[in-house]
Amino acid sequence: MRYFIQLSYKGTAYCGWQRQPNARSVQQTIEEALSTLMHEQIEIVGAGRTDTGVHAAFYVAHFDCAAPIADTSKLAYHLNAILPGDIACRSIYPVSDSAHARFDAVEREYRYYIQTHKDPFSRESAWQITTPLDIDAMNEAARVLLATEDFTSFAKLGSNNTTNICHIYRAEWVQIECGMVVFIFRANRFLRNMVRAVVGTLVDVGRGKLTPAEFADIVASRDLSRSSSSAPAAGLFLTDVKY
Amino acid sequence: MRYFIQLSYKGTAYCGWQRQPNARSVQQTIEEALSTLMHEQIEIVGAGRTDTGVHAAFYVAHFDCAAPIADTSKLAYHLNAILPGDIACRSIYPVSDSAHARFDAVEREYRYYIQTHKDPFSRESAWQITTPLDIDAMNEAARVLLATEDFTSFAKLGSNNTTNICHIYRAEWVQIECGMVVFIFRANRFLRNMVRAVVGTLVDVGRGKLTPAEFADIVASRDLSRSSSSAPAAGLFLTDVKY
Repeated sequence: MRYFIQLSYKGTAYCGWQRQPNARSVQQTIEEALSTLMHEQIEIVGAGRTDTGVHAAFYVAHFDCAAPIADTSKLAYHLNAILPGDIACRSIYPVSDSAHARFDAVEREYRYYIQTHKDPFSRESAWQITTPLDIDAMNEAARVLLATEDFTSFAKLGSNNTTNICHIYRAEWVQIECGMVVFIFRANRFLRNMVRAVVGTLVDVGRGKLTPAEFADIVASRDLSRSSSSAPAAGLFLTDVKY
Repeated sequence: MRYFIQLSYKGTAYCGWQRQPNARSVQQTIEEALSTLMHEQIEIVGAGRTDTGVHAAFYVAHFDCAAPIADTSKLAYHLNAILPGDIACRSIYPVSDSAHARFDAVEREYRYYIQTHKDPFSRESAWQITTPLDIDAMNEAARVLLATEDFTSFAKLGSNNTTNICHIYRAEWVQIECGMVVFIFRANRFLRNMVRAVVGTLVDVGRGKLTPAEFADIVASRDLSRSSSSAPAAGLFLTDVKY
């Protein structure tokens, strides 16, 4: 029997989603909790990797188990009781045996938060930039992404992507409340490190180090060495996965 | 010369606002930073105490210094650079020598946040209650507070209040987003521990342990032993002080 599990987690204390030999991952933490509760060895397959310190407000994974789960709500309740406070199970539901949390996802959304004044409450969930940012210029540059398919300029070297082609559905900076701006980035797929590399380069536009036209040149160059440093992990949230 | 300083701080790591002999307070942290920057011993007087772990989204204090500050924005900038990340200075401005951050405050607002499902992101800023709460009943009970002046039922024993009379301007539970409710509580003044004792007792109404009528009886009794346990510090924010 195969099940989808919807999760949210604060990534600060983890080496990311993916199991690692010498560090605590979200995947391992959930697999251990599910295995304890279900009295069998459970392996989960996630919708994608998130890096060290990156958060997920919405995440989907699948797992198989020998017998049907009698009461998925009860399992979710017990799972929340034994999982640490920084990982929450939102729901568990049965799917067909061929459903796949990673391969069947058709759309994902990331949000990147920037706090533009010193804020005691968002240090682990936003990039704090107290120098002025030109949000209009950042949005002018972001519109270039909507017309882009090849994201080689923002693809991490050494990652085993078979293609660097992505279809972007939304790429927009929005002022959400006094001092907080969020970059909403939706696509069918994202390359490893792509969101943080795009955000880092857009922030250089906001700081006046790059013009929107220079940003467009960097995108068109398909040259990773021209993009800026990646934005810090703390500001990044996976916020949606659609099937 | 006297100055007002507007602040915000995350209280998690502190023993509260007030200086204590053997624990780190917000007051001590700011006094040390100001004294370093201004090359004289600075003492600050806050708008009120906040307890261990309680936050302030908006806080006001005053301090005196020997010579006028040439550039208050620059001082605020340098102060933010040397203060830890969980304390922020919003502004510094000159006031008359008789202005007093505590005695001149005519209105204060606290907000208490309750998260009604397990949430990895608000563990240090909300009380997580995953059992059902009847918000309508909590609001019916809260309306009793608007007609109340004597808050002896929620006054901490041993505190040196000269009077337990408070004038309440707002006492209302508001659903702010999926799974988060906030109690907005405005008054001319608050007694020590009052907000957390009121919230703890209102939550017992929400859980069905008390009816709104029983809540009204507790308020009218002026008997501290009848109110419920105080709500945890993490959910409480001082959010406004008016002069």
